[in-house]
Amino acid sequence: MVTGLGVRFDSIVASAGPLCVGIDPSAAALQAFGLPDTAEGALEFGRAVVAASIPRVGIVKPQVAYFERFGSAGIGSLETLIREARSGGLAVIADAKRGDIGSTMDGYANAWLASGPLQSDALTVSPYVGFDALEPAFSLATNYGATVFVLCATSNTNADQLQRATIAGAALPAVVARFARERSGGTMTVGVVVGATRGLADSGLTEADLDGLLILAPGFGAQGASLADISRIFGTATSRVIPSVSRSVTNDGLANMPRSIDRHLRELGL
Amino acid sequence: MVTGLGVRFDSIVASAGPLCVGIDPSAAALQAFGLPDTAEGALEFGRAVVAASIPRVGIVKPQVAYFERFGSAGIGSLETLIREARSGGLAVIADAKRGDIGSTMDGYANAWLASGPLQSDALTVSPYVGFDALEPAFSLATNYGATVFVLCATSNTNADQLQRATIAGAALPAVVARFARERSGGTMTVGVVVGATRGLADSGLTEADLDGLLILAPGFGAQGASLADISRIFGTATSRVIPSVSRSVTNDGLANMPRSIDRHLRELGL
Repeated sequence: MVTGLGVRFDSIVASAGPLCVGIDPSAAALQAFGLPDTAEGALEFGRAVVAASIPRVGIVKPQVAYFERFGSAGIGSLETLIREARSGGLAVIADAKRGDIGSTMDGYANAWLASGPLQSDALTVSPYVGFDALEPAFSLATNYGATVFVLCATSNTNADQLQRATIAGAALPAVVARFARERSGGTMTVGVVVGATRGLADSGLTEADLDGLLILAPGFGAQGASLADISRIFGTATSRVIPSVSRSVTNDGLANMPRSIDRHLRELGL
Repeated sequence: MVTGLGVRFDSIVASAGPLCVGIDPSAAALQAFGLPDTAEGALEFGRAVVAASIPRVGIVKPQVAYFERFGSAGIGSLETLIREARSGGLAVIADAKRGDIGSTMDGYANAWLASGPLQSDALTVSPYVGFDALEPAFSLATNYGATVFVLCATSNTNADQLQRATIAGAALPAVVARFARERSGGTMTVGVVVGATRGLADSGLTEADLDGLLILAPGFGAQGASLADISRIFGTATSRVIPSVSRSVTNDGLANMPRSIDRHLRELGL
């Protein structure tokens, strides 16, 4: 079914706005919720975030690492969570940051984008291996109307250890954005991940570099950037930014999640 | 238990040599073996490769993507395979190419290096997010005597789309290798992945860049590099190279795997 994030983005924004709620069942988060640090606890945590997200937002982003740490049982919980979130009308971004070459990348693309137990509406990938190596994901995303978000400028303090490297004067984030623009050709098949904490210029990016690209933007909330500043940070690219908040929603505890999400929506002016 | 690849490398080389056999249950490989393209088929394939590897080699490398494409069932097969391979005395490199920041990287490190259902003797990681962001994996590897192989120069034809980027005149592979040397400090906690297909110079590397580092080297066999050329390719770094072969072992079919491995060992001069 062609129902991925790419083909649904405009209608999601029209009905619920662009906010994305992250699902990060870390050991600390499970403890704060009074849940066991197990695959079952991670599923219960995820279900609570999904319940608070409907109908406030249209997009959720499970962080795969926090499920993978429980092995197959954790991935089983993630399958259930993805299925339930999509059944509830949410678009699911699998934040997996996969990246490999050739038929191996094809394996990852099939895992997360093809019809199967982990099928999601979007996937994050990592481009160190080269942009064209990620083509199997782009191809499958095209088939399913999904979006592949390529890591471009990350939100961590040591991001520039590699990302400040340049090719012909352009820093890696600008190089990745250029490849993404060329491959997406104005569609929403290929997007980029640009952290909101550093500012575009500090990452070697301009607003023009991001022209037409769907942008997944972590770094809001607990990581430091304010949703109220989204236009200042992303300028002309703002209308295609999916701001993502995780800990700032769940840190206030189970009962307060709806209020935390509503507060973030107000910060966005929604 | 401190029994990872780092603390065992010297004894593995002394007893079996450095050759690593990849376990890549792609759809094409399963079909060639007459196995179903399912999680069960992937486990049977993996068991056959493990059986042919003992006692010929000391290291196997399951490619996680080919298990992940079956979701939790595939990861369950991988758990079984890793456990059986380690019980049989093999060191297991989980070829997962994970890479994320902060507590998310901690989740991946725990999944693959801590005591648990997927615990392996080594893990491959991807550095686009920054080298220090991978520290949770290095820390856990230290605790368990394991090795974290950081993607440095990959073996695909489009690798240089990003990897030719430079910082102060050094290409990304040389930058990654420098970080790895600093962090490993002469131990085998941190290694690098350097594909054998392109040659060091073409990747912006010198033998000195790799001084003292454990090197996982895919690209031999089906991808084009010959094991007989390993000294020509890696020069003074050759004694710490783990050459990896996958399709060239399994493409000849189930019954021929022992002979294929023996042929590769002869090419290495073992």
